[in-house]
Amino acid sequence: MKASVKQNILETGARIIHHKGYNHTGIQEILKAAGVPKGSFYFYFKNKEDFGLQVIDYFNGFYAEKAEAILKDRNHAPLKRIETFFDGFAQLFMDMDYTCGCPIGNFAQEMGDISPEFRDKLKGAYKMMTGFYVDALTEAKENGDISKDLDVENAAEFIVYSWQGALMKMKVDKGPETLEKFKRFIFQTVLRS
Amino acid sequence: MKASVKQNILETGARIIHHKGYNHTGIQEILKAAGVPKGSFYFYFKNKEDFGLQVIDYFNGFYAEKAEAILKDRNHAPLKRIETFFDGFAQLFMDMDYTCGCPIGNFAQEMGDISPEFRDKLKGAYKMMTGFYVDALTEAKENGDISKDLDVENAAEFIVYSWQGALMKMKVDKGPETLEKFKRFIFQTVLRS
Repeated sequence: MKASVKQNILETGARIIHHKGYNHTGIQEILKAAGVPKGSFYFYFKNKEDFGLQVIDYFNGFYAEKAEAILKDRNHAPLKRIETFFDGFAQLFMDMDYTCGCPIGNFAQEMGDISPEFRDKLKGAYKMMTGFYVDALTEAKENGDISKDLDVENAAEFIVYSWQGALMKMKVDKGPETLEKFKRFIFQTVLRS
Repeated sequence: MKASVKQNILETGARIIHHKGYNHTGIQEILKAAGVPKGSFYFYFKNKEDFGLQVIDYFNGFYAEKAEAILKDRNHAPLKRIETFFDGFAQLFMDMDYTCGCPIGNFAQEMGDISPEFRDKLKGAYKMMTGFYVDALTEAKENGDISKDLDVENAAEFIVYSWQGALMKMKVDKGPETLEKFKRFIFQTVLRS
């Protein structure tokens, strides 16, 4: 029961922060939306910063779960899995009317200059996201699906942050075109064998 | 004299907004930093939104001036000019201790979901930035420096937003490595002929 109260606060807070940004979101607003008294918040979280860092963990968990299911699915070739992964997120953002963008990118933008604790947490998030692509691209290289000269580590990092850049542009375009072009460009140019 | 008061407010506001974000910056704070009374602000700007839109124009002007000088400098080959352009901004961000990131990207992140007026203004900014790369890449293609199969328009858009994504990661890393790797990856992989 206690775990589910904490999870309720985290999920509600993550949703609001994704829409409004971390700095713009007040604890009071989260508690009201979650229907939880103030005391419960401070039972589970030391302060807003502690909460924010755990919201990043929450988003990391969401990402890792999708990436485990799709990017590590050995029933499909690695490049196909990457495409499916992009498509899944493109669908998610279509369902969200092309709002919000990447929560990790948003936190990097908002908190990267402000807090060493957030920077450390975000470094971990980037590393985790990159790792999934490194594994898939390494397998693609072994299969001969991409050039043996491709620097897999650098390509994986590049995919992570260029995707975040594409999501920023998507928020301006309010349509599917940037993510579609991103995918095409990654496969036809960046990863062409 | 009047033009310079307006310019003073714009430059001061742009600097503060670049550091703190648009939503976090109050008019009062800008006026105090600029040493200008409140009445002057409302003489030049209708409201904060009008001011914010003109700050985007200010950043666009800064970018266009650099791009005109470097990306259109026919004394050098087009790919060399793009490299010099990246290097110039890498130096700028080093001087700023790897803070702030791309102001246009920051506005897209902050205001893309909130304001149609900002979206329209930002669409113009993306188009302007993309146009400079389209011109340089078209010339590089004509010279045979890059593949004749490269979709120049898509590549130019991709460079603009992937650079913004790299700047977000730079804010977390607080070092030169992401921008260095970005440059290497663009030339050795994305634009390799």
